[in-house]
This record gives sequence, C-alpha cells and structure tokens, in this order.
Amino acid sequence: MLRSYLNGQWRTPIDDGRPLLDAATGDEVARISGEGLDYAATLDYARTVGGPALRESGFRGRAGMLKALAKHLTEHLPEFHELSLRTGATPRDGKVDVDGGISVLFVYASKGARELPNGNVLLDGETELVGKQGTFGVQHVHTPIPGVAVQVNAFNFPVWGMLEKLAPALLAGVPSLVKPASQTAYLTELVVQRIIEPGILPDGAVQLACARPDGLLDALTGADLLSVTGSAATASALRTHPTVAGNAVRFTAEADSLNCSILGPDATAGTEEFDLFVKQLVTEMTVKAGQKCTAIRRAFVPAPLLDDVEAAVRERLGGVTVGHPAENVRMGALASLAQRDDVLAQLGKLTSAGRLVHGDPERFDVVGADAERGAFLPPLLVRCDDPDHAEPHEVEAFGPVSTLMPYRDAQQAVAYAARGAGSLVGSVVSADRDFTREVVLGAAPWHGRLLALDHTDAAESTGHGSPLPHTTHGGPGRAGGGEELGGLRGVRHHMQRSAIQGHPDLLATLTEDRS
Amino acid sequence: MLRSYLNGQWRTPIDDGRPLLDAATGDEVARISGEGLDYAATLDYARTVGGPALRESGFRGRAGMLKALAKHLTEHLPEFHELSLRTGATPRDGKVDVDGGISVLFVYASKGARELPNGNVLLDGETELVGKQGTFGVQHVHTPIPGVAVQVNAFNFPVWGMLEKLAPALLAGVPSLVKPASQTAYLTELVVQRIIEPGILPDGAVQLACARPDGLLDALTGADLLSVTGSAATASALRTHPTVAGNAVRFTAEADSLNCSILGPDATAGTEEFDLFVKQLVTEMTVKAGQKCTAIRRAFVPAPLLDDVEAAVRERLGGVTVGHPAENVRMGALASLAQRDDVLAQLGKLTSAGRLVHGDPERFDVVGADAERGAFLPPLLVRCDDPDHAEPHEVEAFGPVSTLMPYRDAQQAVAYAARGAGSLVGSVVSADRDFTREVVLGAAPWHGRLLALDHTDAAESTGHGSPLPHTTHGGPGRAGGGEELGGLRGVRHHMQRSAIQGHPDLLATLTEDRS
Repeated sequence: MLRSYLNGQWRTPIDDGRPLLDAATGDEVARISGEGLDYAATLDYARTVGGPALRESGFRGRAGMLKALAKHLTEHLPEFHELSLRTGATPRDGKVDVDGGISVLFVYASKGARELPNGNVLLDGETELVGKQGTFGVQHVHTPIPGVAVQVNAFNFPVWGMLEKLAPALLAGVPSLVKPASQTAYLTELVVQRIIEPGILPDGAVQLACARPDGLLDALTGADLLSVTGSAATASALRTHPTVAGNAVRFTAEADSLNCSILGPDATAGTEEFDLFVKQLVTEMTVKAGQKCTAIRRAFVPAPLLDDVEAAVRERLGGVTVGHPAENVRMGALASLAQRDDVLAQLGKLTSAGRLVHGDPERFDVVGADAERGAFLPPLLVRCDDPDHAEPHEVEAFGPVSTLMPYRDAQQAVAYAARGAGSLVGSVVSADRDFTREVVLGAAPWHGRLLALDHTDAAESTGHGSPLPHTTHGGPGRAGGGEELGGLRGVRHHMQRSAIQGHPDLLATLTEDRS
Repeated sequence: MLRSYLNGQWRTPIDDGRPLLDAATGDEVARISGEGLDYAATLDYARTVGGPALRESGFRGRAGMLKALAKHLTEHLPEFHELSLRTGATPRDGKVDVDGGISVLFVYASKGARELPNGNVLLDGETELVGKQGTFGVQHVHTPIPGVAVQVNAFNFPVWGMLEKLAPALLAGVPSLVKPASQTAYLTELVVQRIIEPGILPDGAVQLACARPDGLLDALTGADLLSVTGSAATASALRTHPTVAGNAVRFTAEADSLNCSILGPDATAGTEEFDLFVKQLVTEMTVKAGQKCTAIRRAFVPAPLLDDVEAAVRERLGGVTVGHPAENVRMGALASLAQRDDVLAQLGKLTSAGRLVHGDPERFDVVGADAERGAFLPPLLVRCDDPDHAEPHEVEAFGPVSTLMPYRDAQQAVAYAARGAGSLVGSVVSADRDFTREVVLGAAPWHGRLLALDHTDAAESTGHGSPLPHTTHGGPGRAGGGEELGGLRGVRHHMQRSAIQGHPDLLATLTEDRS
C-alpha cells in the first residue's frame, strides 16, 4: 500500500486501494489509496513550516542541500533501477528517468552555488534611474513566493518528472507537494522515501500525496504555483478549476505535443545528416516505448527523399527487439494495457490519413513476456503522402508511433511545423546552415525548444527528446503554454517579480545578505 | 454611433445601439452597438496582414513608428482633453490618462531605439555550452508570437489603458485588437481614429472593436495573447473560457486590488514623511475620483500615530472640491451612476468593520453640476481600529474611498499587507531604511510594485498610483496574477521564448539581421 508523506510523517491509508500492475507481466506491484486527504492542512504545513525553513538557508544553502540530496540518491540507484523495470522501462529507459532526474538536481545544485547569491532576493536587471537628479529609480527583484508548488506529474517519468519540478522549487525556497500519477507512483514513493530519510531537507519542504486529488485544488491560493504535466485535457481541466482561476493561482502546464523533426534538402542518402535523422527518429520512437511528451510524432522529409528515408527507417526499426525490460531488449512495455489500447485507437485515426509502413500490432515478437498480459507494441511507422490531412498534426498516439511526411521547401516545412499548434520541441537535421536558420527562426514562435543537428554538433548533441536542465521545457498552445527548467529561469518561475521604486541608496540594500 | 475599425476599414453598426452618458451631466455622448462582429475574420486579418507587415520593419523600425505616432497624437491633445471631460475626469485626471498614455509610446519608442537590435529576434541570456568540446550549446531567444494581442480594457483609463498595452505589442511586432470598455469607448475611438489616419502603422496592426464581444474568445488560438484589465470576476471568466483554456491562449490579467500604504514608526507628526504619507493618501483618494486600480485602499499607520494621521487626512480632504470636471474642481465625477451605486454598496460593507470619519455621501457640495444626474461622491475616509476584520482587506470600493488602520510593528505591517491576497502596488513611507527594507522585502512577494518614499526621493518620486512604462504593472492573486509594461519585459511578454540547441557557430547567426 503506497503511503503519503504529510505534515512531517508517513501516513498509511486505511482503505484497500486499487492494484497497480507490472507493465510487462500484469502482476500486482503495489496498491494506491482511493481516499482523499486533508489537503488544506498539508498545504498549510508547507506554507508555514516548510517554506520558512527552506528560506532560512538562502540560495547557496539550498544549493548545498540539492547537491547532498543528489549524492544520496545516487547511492540508491540500484533499487531505483530494479523497481523501474516494473514500469515497463528498459535499463536504458530507466537511466533517462532515474539518472536523468538526479542529474537535474546536480545541475541546479551547481548553478545555485555558482550563479546565485546568498539570501533570497534575485535582481532582475539593473537599477534604472527615472529622475534627472539621481534620487529616484526602479530595481526589479524576484522574491520566493510565500506559497506551495503543487506538482502534478505524469506516469511516464516517475522520477525525472518529479525531480525536474522539485529542483527549481527547492532552490527558489518554495516547498513542494508532489502528486504522482497513479500508474507508476510506487517508484516515486520509493524515491521520496530516500529523499526524506537522510534529513537533508527541512521538514515540510517536500510532501507526497499518493491519494485521490479531491479537494486539493480548492485549497490553493494566489501565493501558490500549480504545475502540471499530462494531457491537454487534464491541463485545461485544472486551469479552469474555479479556485485556480478565481485566485489567479500561478499555473504552468506541459502537455504532450505533436513534435516534428525536419530533414534538410541537402541531406540525401549517404550524408551524415541523413543517417543522423534516421537514427534519431528511431531512437525517439523506441525510448520509453515512445511514451515521451517530446518524442517525434511528425517526421518531415523533402519529397524526393521520402522513399529513401522510409526504407532506411524501416530497416533500422527491423532490428528493434521488444519484450520484458529485463531481457536486454531494445524496447520494453507501455505503462499499462489501457495505454496500449489508447495508442491503437489513435493509430486507427492516423492510418485514415496515411498507411502503416512498418510494424503490425497484431503480429510481433515479444521476448521473455506474455504479449497479452504485458502492454507491448512494436514500433509503428505511418507514411502520409499528403500532409494537408488534419490527423498527423492533431492526433497523438502516445507510444512508439511516428508519421513520415513530405514537404517542398523551407517555408512549407515551417508551415507544417506550425500546424502542430504549439510543440515542446522540434529538430532540424541539415548541414545547410541557411536552411537551418530559416526553419529554426520560422518555427521558433511555435516551439519551446529547437534542436539544430548536423555532423558538427552530433557528437555532443543531447538529442531531440531530452530536455536539459539548462533549456526551457514547455511550449505554446497544444504543448500547454507553460515553461519549466531553463536553468535559473525555472527558479524565477517560483518567485514573484516586483518593481521596487525608491532612492538608489535604498535599492542598493535590497540584496544585502543580513542573515 | 461609435464605429469599429476592422480589416482595414471603419465599420458603422446598423443597430441603434445604447447611449453612453456624460458622467457629470447625464447627457448622451455617443451610442455603442449591441451587435457582435465577425471576430474570426478580424483576427485572421491581424495574423495574416497586420503581423507580417509589422515584422517587416524589425524592432528599430517599429520604434520609429511609435515615436512618430506619439508625436502625431501629441498634436491632437486639445480634442482628447475636451472629450475626456465627459468621462468625469478633471483636466488633471485627463493628463494622467491622455498625456500619460502618449508618454508610454515615447518611452517604448526610446527604449526600442536604444536597447533593441534590428530584426525580430531577442537573445535571452548568453550561449551556454553543454558539451566539453565546444561543439554544442544552447541559446535562448525570443521571437514575436505569430498571433494577435487581444486587449480588453477597463473604463477608467480609455487612453492610457489602451496605449500601455498597445506600445509593447507594437514594438514586439504583434498586431492588436483593442476592445474598450463601453462606458468611455468614445474617447478610445477618437484616439484610434488619430492613430489610423496618418498611416504610420501598417494596415492590420491595430484594429478596434466597439461592439459586443460575443464570439471573440472562441476565435483565439495558442498563438494569441489575451490581456485583460478589469475586475477579478471578469478576469476569471475570461481565463476559464473553454477556448482560452483549451488552446492555452497566453493570458494576462490586471485586476483591481486592495493596495496598501504603510507609514513608518519614525514618521511622527511634523516629519516630512508624515506629510508625504498624508498628501499621497489624499492624492490617491481623489485622482480619477479614486477609480484607479492602483489607488490606496488600505492605509496602515503605527497605532500611536493613528489619531494624528486621521486628523491630518481629514483636514486635507476638507479642502477637496467636487463638481463638474471643467469647473476647476479637485475631484470630478465617477464614470457612471452605476459605478456610484456600486461604491456606496461597498462602502456599506466597509463601515460594518469600521466607521466613516470623513465625507457624507448624502450631503456634500457639487460645483457646477447636478448632484443627482452626475455620478458624484465626496472623498470618504473609513477608520477601522481592528484590522483583523476581513472587510478592509477584501472589499474594494472603486471610488474615493480608503480605510485607515493601525499596526504594531514591521512584521505585522507585512502580514496585513499580505491579507490583500495579492496587490498591484504598495508604498512604504519612512525615513528609516531598515524598516523600509524589511517591509519592502516582506511584502514584495505579494506585490507587483512597491514604492519606498521619503524626503530623499520625494521630489523625483512618480508616486504610489502611477505605473511607469519602466516598471512592471500587475500583481499576484487578487491583482490578477499578470504582468504588463516593465520596459522591455513587456515586449518579451509578446514573444515566445525558445531554447535553440546546436553548434555555437549556428547559434551565433540567429540574431544576424538579414533583412
């Protein structure tokens, strides 16, 4: 039975809960409560105990906590990885989630130590004098919000998803309430145990709710922040909750989007960029069985290269093994049978606008597991020769599914990218920097992140699908209209910006550390 | 009959509309249509004609447009001021609205010319290398949103309210649709005529809707921005509109709030700060007849000074004349009889927690106008000796009304300030910089702007109630949770931030001006 960590103690629910099943075997892993919690008390504890305690330390003190925490969690990698297998994630997938999550802590620890002052005040720009005598000016500052960061996470990254929200909140001096998605909450619960145990963080700095969310949003105020990762429908429902809207609760959403990858016209078969494009597409289709909000859903290729790309992608996909994540396969299971059903339903819509050119969901090999009890699918490549169809730009199959489409020129590529109506990430793979620049700048207002990939940066590139702690993560419109991470930008998301007006001598005292 | 300016032409409605009355005399000034418009076509025109045309020019070209526009409008000051009187605004009030609005254009013109590059791309921070070989990095950039800025304005500042939203949008390269509040839309319409006439702006850059808003929000996409000034209820209704929420339309609200002013314990009667506090409070109660979202609603005074402050404020209020705005009075009329009724209803709630110590809404002199036909009120001062009551912190009378309250120490002053649950602005009046610093930093997370006032900066201070183009305007929670202005921050609000990853040589080309 998964426990919650509230008001400084672990709480075991009294109901029987409902079972959470191993993605690959269907065996029960844990049970999660069907009860609600006294969220008003939990949030109050965060605001009155956790927040003030965190802010006692100042940015640098908190950066030290993050570093200690990251080191401590690193010692527990083996148990995290073992439990991660049960979510359907292969060891490679688990590294993205677990090690990737811990690395966010390390990066924020390092940035906090190197780039932030003592105290709790960040300057925003310089003092600007307004009067001519030099006696009156304005200094914009950021101060930590006096509320709680309520973090509603998605099922696909039970560790990274939590830590990428937690790290900037902690560094800012804002306590968090973590609300994991049920399906994989057992892994989140284990990590939170390891976070709490060593006493590195002050009491109330992190709380965990493994329970129904009823009443949670009603307890939010204008001093709080609600951040959500999930579907567009979930994001919209939370955003319009009467208390969230009525109190103008800070809100950020990161929703799945129809991310694109665009191959340049120079990148014909045999070029390094051609291979990079194909390899990246297959990676994005298969990592986490394609259950990544950043995965490539739409692959745009110059029309004359479409057949070559299709052939190369199919060949590479042919080598992808699917099965129990512990069995040294390339691709594990989806998170649940319900997810698999959902992907197949969406695939049906996509193939109404194109045709399936690789993968047969009815016939594929599963290594070391039962294909019926586990949530398995093969990689599925759709080809759509007429991208004027709506489906490829609007229908997301949240699994190992991508659609290959032709385009004519840079301008059309940008227009197609924009038809995703806002995406988390896009990539341009080309050695022609004029082409890349044109597409990147044209597509930028529709994207939170864009990757320009070619032979000059491929060796060090972190890839299309990986948001770094250094880069903003989020995107406009369909992608939720939010923003997370981005280095210290993510810290400032947890702070209120205020314009302070007064005599420059007073303004100069604002960042003095008097602790 | 007020016209709309849509798709490059002025459109006269065919219905009879409803009358808009002179605030001081009750005479009809204009009529406004009760029909809707084809908003989808209007927004499409902005996105496909106005936006691209604006972005042809780059930041500096657009800064030049703003300057030319500001100069042109300055030539028309007399007619604006004459019409402004009919809104109930005195000539002094009119200067805040009209001249203040034009000065926003001048400031943005100047900032654009001095601080922005050519082209349409703004860097956000520096290029950060991620790999060790120096072949891969990230550069965050801002690019103009490819949509429309839909600007829903309030009745109290028909000129400034429009121009403070328009200036940053135009400089960013984003076309606007202006939706004025009905009551004072005639003044907005006149100014928009003068904006359009000289042909300084490209077609589609500014459109005006003097009509019912039905269908407007339904036509918004994730590429657009909706900014609203008005009541918290209006803001919440717009924020939760299914299309706005579902498409994650960028949203910013600026709502009336319970702004506070805090007198320092050092500022006893006879000190310069005591006088500054009293004078500023009276100014904020009477300018625009207190119809300012930034006006001081809660005045906090050290308990031992409460009687002295009350006496001084009452004395000063005693000299305030009320009447027809053309009659050289200190205070004009509220915008409408409905507003007056609303203020009186709110006053009733406030006096349940305190007592009226100055002004009698049933008995006061009105100079040069009929007290019944015009929307007049005298300045009304409430004293509440127990600030633990909820009303002074929650009930806003949007007129010449403030509540005087005692506090004990800096910590309690901060706590009381926070009970406004988020405000646009607060001020601290004290020569004790330690006290000021403590209150400013404590209150900052609850405020969008804070003014520190004392004898050293008073001569150049721009005052509690005036958001400068240089300072952010907006506030958390009750104040709407939004942000406008703040110099170039306001321009970036109209742009999408994207993390661009790639080889540093490519990243360096992003801001090259190739126009």
